[in-house]
Formats: sequence, structure tokens, C-alpha cells
Amino acid sequence: MSTRATRTYELDRAHVFHSWSAQSTLDPMVVEGAEGSYFWDGDGNRYLDFSSQLVYTNIGHQHPTVVAAIQEQAARLCTIAPPYANEARSEAARLIAERTPAGLDKVFFTNGGAEAVEHAVRMARLHTGRPKVLSQYRSYHGGTQTAVNLTGDPRRWPNDTGTAGVARFFGPFLYRSEFGATTEEEEAALALRHLERVVEMEGPSTIAAIVLETVPGTAGVMPPPPGYLAGVRALCDKHGILYVADEVMAGFGRTGAWFALDHYGVVPDLITFAKGVNSGYVPLGGVVISDHVVETFSTRPYPGGLTYSGHPLAAAAAVATMTAMRDEGIVENAARIGADVLGPGLREMAERHPSVGDVRGLGVFWAVELVKDRATKEPLAPYGSSSVEMNEVLTACKRNGVIPLANFNRIHVVPPCTVSETEVKTGLAVLDEALNLADRYTV
Amino acid sequence: MSTRATRTYELDRAHVFHSWSAQSTLDPMVVEGAEGSYFWDGDGNRYLDFSSQLVYTNIGHQHPTVVAAIQEQAARLCTIAPPYANEARSEAARLIAERTPAGLDKVFFTNGGAEAVEHAVRMARLHTGRPKVLSQYRSYHGGTQTAVNLTGDPRRWPNDTGTAGVARFFGPFLYRSEFGATTEEEEAALALRHLERVVEMEGPSTIAAIVLETVPGTAGVMPPPPGYLAGVRALCDKHGILYVADEVMAGFGRTGAWFALDHYGVVPDLITFAKGVNSGYVPLGGVVISDHVVETFSTRPYPGGLTYSGHPLAAAAAVATMTAMRDEGIVENAARIGADVLGPGLREMAERHPSVGDVRGLGVFWAVELVKDRATKEPLAPYGSSSVEMNEVLTACKRNGVIPLANFNRIHVVPPCTVSETEVKTGLAVLDEALNLADRYTV
Ligand SMILES: Cc1ncc(COP(=O)(O)O)c(C=O)c1O
Ligand SMILES: Cc1ncc(COP(=O)(O)O)c(C=O)c1O
Repeated sequence: MSTRATRTYELDRAHVFHSWSAQSTLDPMVVEGAEGSYFWDGDGNRYLDFSSQLVYTNIGHQHPTVVAAIQEQAARLCTIAPPYANEARSEAARLIAERTPAGLDKVFFTNGGAEAVEHAVRMARLHTGRPKVLSQYRSYHGGTQTAVNLTGDPRRWPNDTGTAGVARFFGPFLYRSEFGATTEEEEAALALRHLERVVEMEGPSTIAAIVLETVPGTAGVMPPPPGYLAGVRALCDKHGILYVADEVMAGFGRTGAWFALDHYGVVPDLITFAKGVNSGYVPLGGVVISDHVVETFSTRPYPGGLTYSGHPLAAAAAVATMTAMRDEGIVENAARIGADVLGPGLREMAERHPSVGDVRGLGVFWAVELVKDRATKEPLAPYGSSSVEMNEVLTACKRNGVIPLANFNRIHVVPPCTVSETEVKTGLAVLDEALNLADRYTV
Repeated sequence: MSTRATRTYELDRAHVFHSWSAQSTLDPMVVEGAEGSYFWDGDGNRYLDFSSQLVYTNIGHQHPTVVAAIQEQAARLCTIAPPYANEARSEAARLIAERTPAGLDKVFFTNGGAEAVEHAVRMARLHTGRPKVLSQYRSYHGGTQTAVNLTGDPRRWPNDTGTAGVARFFGPFLYRSEFGATTEEEEAALALRHLERVVEMEGPSTIAAIVLETVPGTAGVMPPPPGYLAGVRALCDKHGILYVADEVMAGFGRTGAWFALDHYGVVPDLITFAKGVNSGYVPLGGVVISDHVVETFSTRPYPGGLTYSGHPLAAAAAVATMTAMRDEGIVENAARIGADVLGPGLREMAERHPSVGDVRGLGVFWAVELVKDRATKEPLAPYGSSSVEMNEVLTACKRNGVIPLANFNRIHVVPPCTVSETEVKTGLAVLDEALNLADRYTV
């Protein structure tokens, strides 16, 4: 390692407290630079970024027009407080509202996804006057107290004192169906019946909102079956419950559409976003708010805020990102890569590797579920942790220069929306070889 | 207004949902640019920034070396995910740890202050295994659900369902003493006795942390009397309670010291920061963690995180900000301005204006409390809202080109730490004139 990288490493170990980790067990890679679909470490090794970091650099690393926009805005005006109006903030809000369904025209800006979820829940509670919020098992909504309690994965457990006002239900997930369904159609119907019953048992008049990732991401990239989200919308309408679509990970190109919602034609009451909106070049998130919810806070103050709401530098990055995505057909590229290269490639691999239990996804948003036994679907790592077997696969990918995202027994193939066909093929070849290691553990 | 500013205004009204506000009543000023202690609007009016926006641009607007550092980091590497090590992140953590007391050496980075408070509370709960957190009435800790419930001002009310696990107590505040004290010494002793009793009544074994702004800011800039914070520290030690110092507003130069804690010589278990760390040029906050708390998460994972923890662009801005503050003696300037210009100037004004009930502060962190009657201390605006009288004073300041911060019946004079003596005198002259309007309402 260069002395510079060595110093970075040592200072990191001495002074940086890392998220979601036991601090003594860490051995972080020093990242020195990045470009497009690649980043490189302190030893000069280049890696194909099949993770888009934490699934957020949708436009790839160091996109030149976004970098330039940040530099220009920095020269002009780095920051101004939320009560003022500012060109970058206004323009970012306009461009976001342009991509959301009619009737969702106002944007409340936050610094990231968790804060967006916190504020969406608050808006729903105050709009309805009801205390409770429903969310799915197998979901992720962020790290602050309300958001992590909405989260349906084991990271909630240490933070759950039972007082967050959240009740949980099972969403549709055919591969591990809660309902014994065998077709997508049946799964949609049974999952909707289940949600209806949970609403009934919890008491519709106590429920402010149902918070749903349009396509649950971290929990396994599970595109909902046709009809499910429309059913959720109808159920919400019936009971005056708000439908909050969490598009933090699925939004802004990830699924090959501007919002994952676009695939399903449903209109929620609130949309949370972050990540792809400016590819995380500057921290930004927010909530897009439907007119009837805005109306609630028309003469009554909205009791929430943050110092950096609508930060000009973050907003300028969002304007440049959305503009480049439109001008360069980046969303279309994600859709094409998914339909023509990534989807077919992964499915073909699944046929050859007995360790692959399931492959699901769309756009540049895919999960490969690894199992020891295709019949029992026994996972290659238990729910909530990793395993020696999974680590072997991941180590092989890394050794050969490809970094996917891993979660429990799954490998998520989530490259930038700008990824090329050649890059995808390179990455898939490495994954293909690594899966041979997993195959050895199958029955 | 220029067409550009007009468009900004119209898009803001159409698409930006503003914090802490009734949306239909807004008429935001368009800010087009800023430099040093000034910013200007769409009509070409220049304003002296006696608010440092929301008390965060401690280094002034558009500081050239910070702007350059952001531009350079943008060219090099805008973003990389938290699991990696990165030079800007490592260096920012080192520089922060260098300024905190020995034994507080690790930094968990967030995007802002509320998230910092959320994570500090989580760390305290998990470290102690206890559910409850104590905070002060007359305090502000942020806008997310846990942080807003710790907040001791009326913005908590609409968000408080009684389930946040927070109990509240009165801090020392001689001007409106809860305890009938007449000297700072007595106030410190009685406020400590009160806190001891609250701890006793709530049950020490149920209390994870006491969360305190070192100098409560938004709630009224109330420097604690000598001995109070040492007493809090001793009380925490006695009962195994963590002491969380919220330095989001008071930290990084505001009080004429790197941390407000430096004035009092106490060592907390956790320090939350944001704002001044990089003057909000890029969203950043965090928690500095003492060794014994880090130890708790040495082999057991810390169950919290966020996508943008330790964001390189934000970290690079922090490195440049802290470096400029050191090299240019900016903290010393804040101390000198407070001691020689702002403090004496405000106190002298208080003598001449019957509407001034109290003047308090240190460094560039001052509050002027306006009253109708010095004897009864009846405020010029009721607790929790504004008034026609206060608006007159503020409008006069603005008309004459000075923007202080206002809260209820108080005017906060909180210019950047870089403010010059001449700028302060200009601003004080405008305030002096505006206070004549307030005087008319006194008995
Ligand atoms: C669907 C979803 N919601 C919310 C969040 C939280 O976002 P952040 O980490 O920016 O707080 C995430 C982060 O991965 C997410 O995937
Ligand atoms: C003392 C204190 N803590 C926390 C916060 C919340 O910070 P943020 O608005 O960045 O979330 C503030 C903001 O004013 C503050 O003054």
C-alpha cells in the first residue's frame, strides 16, 4: 500500500466508528478513486462496482457533468438555510415533481433516506390523526429510531422496545411464499388477503399509513406480482390510510424506470426518495407529498425540519444528475441491460448452478438467492447472518475484481444504471466462476 | 426582481415544502449569493447575516479554502460507501478527535444534528441496557422522532405520543429561575438538586443518558452557571448514566472555544456535533464516542448506520474548515468579538432600552430577551409563538439590512465566528434603532 493509503487505513482504525459493525473485527479496504463502473484501492487494484456502493451511485462514479455542477454551485453558493428560496433547490424540486404522478407536486427535502421516512411517517400521522404505521417483514427503511423500527430485518431487533407504533405483515414473495402460493397471481391475491386481515385485526381507524418499498431492495429485490400494489392502494382508500411508497433504493433509474412505481401504475400519497436522486454525490433525500397532504399543512404548521433541508449543493447535484439521466438515456440503458443482458445472463447461470435457488429483478436491480438444496430451499447462510460458504463466494468475486452486494444468503447484482453490456458480461463471468464454489455445498 | 429570481420564487412556491411552517403563509426571500458575513436577495439587497443562517455558517459564507477543498474533492472522489476507508473521512475524524478531550477518539459520522442525537441515544441505551433518556425543557435536539421528543420546546408537542422514553427536567436559567434563585451560584446548586431528584424519582437504574446542550441555543443561549455541568458529570458517574453533550450548535467556535465544553472542563461520554464542523457547506454531523462506549461495540455489532456516513465531500469540507479555523485564528476571533465588542455592546444597549430584559451569551452566541415589563419579565411574545411587537422589531432590522435570528420573545445575535468588529458595530447600530420600537410597548 502507498504511504498515503496506509495512513488513511491507520487513521480510519483509530478514529472512524463504522456502522452496522463490531469495531474490533473490521479491516476496511482503502478506496482511493473511482470512475464510471469501477473503483480502486490503495494497492492499485481495480474493482467492477456491481454494488453501486450501497445501491446509490446510479449514474456511476464521477460523472463529469455532475462533478462540474457541484464545483459550480460550490463557487456560487454552498449553502443557504431552508426558510429562503434558492435556485438550485427550486429547480431540483421542479425536476423531481416532473417525474412523479400528477397530484404529487411538492417536495420536502432531507439529507437521506431515513430522515425521509421519519418525516413521511410524521406527515401521515398528523394528516390522519392516527398513531400506527404498517410495514413489511423483509424490508429496510433506515437507521434512525422510527425508520429502523419500520425495518423488517434483524437490524431492528436491538432497537425495538415495542413503542414505535409499528405493526408488520408479510408481503408477496413467491419463492418463499408465506401463503403456500404457487403462482404470482395466487401470491398477489393471498398476500392482499393477508394485508386486509392485518388491517382488520389492527383496527383500520388506528392506522395512519402503510409504508412499502415498491420493490423491497436490501431484503432481497422482490418485485411485487401484478395487481398487488393496486390492491394496497384500494385497501388504503377504503380505510383512509395513507400509502407511503419508499423509493429510496428502487427510485431514479434502478428498475429501468424513473420510479419503480411506474411499472405498476399506482399513485401513492407520499413517496420517499434519496440515493439515486443525485447518486449520493452530496447527501440528499426527501418526501414527495400529494396535494391533499400538503393541504393539511396549509394553515397549520408542519412540525418538522432540519438545518440542511434543500441544501443547494445537494440540489445542484440532483439537477445535474436528473438532467444527465434524461439526456444520456440512462434510465433506458438500465431497462435494456436488465431485459437483454443481466436478466438473461443470470437466468442462464441459474440453470447451470445447483446453488442458485432463485434469480429475481428488473433493470439493474437483481438478487441471486443461494441455497444448499433447491428442493428445501435451505439458504447458504442463515437469515440474519453470513456463513463461511457465502464468504468463499464473495472472496472469489473480489479476488477476480468484482464487488457485488451481499445480504445473508443472497448476492445482489446492482451495477450503476450506466453500466455497459461488456462490463456486465465481465462481471457475470466472474460470478459464474465463483458460484462453482457454492455448488460444492449443495446436496 | 430579476426574471431568474422570479422563477426561483415561483418554483419554490409550487414545489418546495418548507419545514416548521404553514405552507400557504410563506413568502420566502430569494437568496442569490453570499460572501463572508453578508448575503443578498433577488432584488440586489445585501444583508448582514447576524443569524449565520440557522447558526451554522461559523466560518462565514463562501470561505475560499473550503470552497476549493469541496471542488478538489469533487474532482477526486465525490462519494464512497461507509464500509470503505477514505482519506478525507479518516482525516476529518482525526481532526475532530484532536479537539475533543482525551478518551473521546472515535467518530461516527451522520448527515446532520438530529441523526447524531438519534445515534447517541441508541449507543447510550445499548451501552447501559436502560430505556430512558433525560433532557431539558428549553432545549432543541432535532427534527426526527427521537430527537424532537428530546426537544424541550413546543415543536415537540404535535409529535409526542408519550412513547419516546424521554423524561424532562429544568436546567439552570437564572433570569427565569425555576427555583427562586437570585445568584448564579444558588441557581447552579438548586438546578443540580432538582436534577438529582428527577433522577431519583425516575429511577436511576432506568436512565441511559442525560442529554444536554452545553449551552442551550435555540431555546435562548443560556450558558450554565459555574459548577453545574461538573455536577451533572458527578451525578451521571454515581448512577452509571451516560452524559451526552449536544454541541451541534455550541460547538466549533460558536462560544469562542472549539467546544463549549472547553469553558467548563467537563468530559462527557458522547458528544454530538454538526453545523460548525464544516459550516454546513456539505451536510455533516456525528457523534464522538468515548473509549468505554466504543468497547461495548467492539465485538458486538453496533446496530445503526446510514448510507452517507462519513461522506467524502462533507469530510473534505470539514478538514478544510477546521484547518482554516486554526490557521486564521477564527475561534480566537469569536472569543475576542464576544468579550470586547458584542458582549459590551449588547449590555450597553440593554441599559438604554427598557424593552431588554436580559442579555446573555459568550463568543458569537448571544440572546437578547425582550419584555414588556422588566419587573414582571412579561415577554414581548408569548412562549411558543411570535407577536406583532416582535415582528415590528425584526422588520426594522431587515429593512436596515441586518438579519438576526428570532425565537419567541428573543433576538439571537449569532454572526459568523469570522465577523469583524466593524460589521458587529454596524449590526448593533441597526438593532439599537429597532429596539426603540420595542420600547414603545413597555410599561
Ligand atoms: C428502501 C430504503 N429506505 C430507506 C433507506 C435509508 O436511507 P439512508 O441510509 O440514506 O438513511 C434505505 C437505505 O438503504 C433504503 O434502501
Ligand atoms: C443543539 C442542537 N442539536 C441538534 C440539532 C439538529 O440538527 P439538524 O437540524 O442538523 O438535524 C440542532 C439544530 O439546530 C441543534 O441546535
